[in-house]
Amino acid sequence: MTDIKTTISEYSAKFNQALPSFFPLPQGAEKRVVEAMQYSVMNGGKRLRPFLVYETAHLFGLDFNASLRTAAALEMLHSYSLIHDDLPAMDNDDLRRGKPTCHKQFDEATAILAGDGLLTYAFEILSAPETCADAQTRCELISLLASGAGAFDGMVAGQMLDLIAEDLPQNENSEQLIKRIEEMKTGRLIRYACEAGAVLGHATSAQRQALVDYSRKIGIAFQIADDILDVEGEQALVGKTLNKDSAQGKVTFVSLYGLNNAKQIANQLIADAKQIISTFGPASQTLQDLADFIINRKY
Amino acid sequence: MTDIKTTISEYSAKFNQALPSFFPLPQGAEKRVVEAMQYSVMNGGKRLRPFLVYETAHLFGLDFNASLRTAAALEMLHSYSLIHDDLPAMDNDDLRRGKPTCHKQFDEATAILAGDGLLTYAFEILSAPETCADAQTRCELISLLASGAGAFDGMVAGQMLDLIAEDLPQNENSEQLIKRIEEMKTGRLIRYACEAGAVLGHATSAQRQALVDYSRKIGIAFQIADDILDVEGEQALVGKTLNKDSAQGKVTFVSLYGLNNAKQIANQLIADAKQIISTFGPASQTLQDLADFIINRKY
Repeated sequence: MTDIKTTISEYSAKFNQALPSFFPLPQGAEKRVVEAMQYSVMNGGKRLRPFLVYETAHLFGLDFNASLRTAAALEMLHSYSLIHDDLPAMDNDDLRRGKPTCHKQFDEATAILAGDGLLTYAFEILSAPETCADAQTRCELISLLASGAGAFDGMVAGQMLDLIAEDLPQNENSEQLIKRIEEMKTGRLIRYACEAGAVLGHATSAQRQALVDYSRKIGIAFQIADDILDVEGEQALVGKTLNKDSAQGKVTFVSLYGLNNAKQIANQLIADAKQIISTFGPASQTLQDLADFIINRKY
Repeated sequence: MTDIKTTISEYSAKFNQALPSFFPLPQGAEKRVVEAMQYSVMNGGKRLRPFLVYETAHLFGLDFNASLRTAAALEMLHSYSLIHDDLPAMDNDDLRRGKPTCHKQFDEATAILAGDGLLTYAFEILSAPETCADAQTRCELISLLASGAGAFDGMVAGQMLDLIAEDLPQNENSEQLIKRIEEMKTGRLIRYACEAGAVLGHATSAQRQALVDYSRKIGIAFQIADDILDVEGEQALVGKTLNKDSAQGKVTFVSLYGLNNAKQIANQLIADAKQIISTFGPASQTLQDLADFIINRKY
């Protein structure tokens, strides 16, 4: 079995090396916002979403460069969401991946603008012919990313629901509620990562559906694992404030199912995901290992 | 001469009637963010940018519906910028067009998300085949909007520079500085409005350049007129807090040139703009009148 941690690290190193070229600094004082964007994007994430774009596109024979810009656009968008989520009016977080959050390192206005700039830049990157030669495909990538990140049933909707969830009447539907939040807030971008690979690779509709199904399973498992890390993780490894969920009395998969059940459910999701992706044959080994990594990671 | 105010009002009424269909409300509690988006977009603006898209596209024979989605996308993006600009960490405004700003009507977190949602939605709208059949054209519209609104030399860069301008060393370059701010912060979207019309209408490169030149002239004139309104306007008509610039000791075209010189400069820009656009013949009459309106408006 491949050492999946090494594989991810190698991809991540290559990806990180390519990123600075996406941030040409303007001459004037307005470069401050680009510095804040770069600070946030270069803040040492695992690059799981870009890695998923690369690996799913790779199933169809695409190499690192052929998926780079799509992967970078997704990471820009993901980074914007973290910057805005961390703002005082939102989750009010001081630490992100062990470093000061954007508004702590710069200031609140710059952080708002840096998030806006990254979100805008994601679409600029995708719209250029360098991303892929076919304009129809670029439009599809843009449409998928915008709806996945959007306010109607995408990431912004999930963040909205998450913010107001504690004020909603608590009833037997809290399981459904938390699943909807996570599917929109975290799940849609993970789904995008896998679907973008299918779009870039001109997958058949059956192949694309398999990748979407895989992404859904690992997406929920990823969130359950995050909730478990919030309880069991080591702060130095996780790099953000832990035990925040329970301190805030927030409903999580762990508070809902209990720690052991949550682990069991995550294990089942990962088993399902591996079974689905295995239909792609030996080329899918890394994506199978990645599924395991999602629940076994310590950070 | 057409009564340009009536022409704009008629367009604006038609545009406002079409807008609600862009905001299908989700079933769940997350609809709050869509309500905030709709509240801000339906907040009674002049719709100058959409009108410019329509009128410039109309030079090439396109009708209301053929430019509607591009115009709507631009207005979504413009509205996002107003929501975020009004936030406490930015300009901290309570009033916008005579009504409570988004964060006053809802709350700060919802306002941040509503801005994010509108920005994202602008690109979703542009990416769909309903906007125009040709994917290459859609990608061009997206690329232009993203760079015009972006952090490198677009609207976000302009807002950044505006925020930090007072901390920069004051010297003889303040004229250059304020021009750069306004060209990025306000000018780029006005330019986009005119250039989008050219792109939708498959203009020749000379025609497109003429429209870009026209947009630059009216863009600066528009900002000078805004600065004048800040000094001379009636609050009930303008719908926002006046005399804010001088209260904050901000450099404006008025503080830079003096009121009379500023008016003269604006008049010259408008004369130039009219001359440029007149090359399109009688069909350009409305755009000529619009240029006059930009400096004669009372709101």
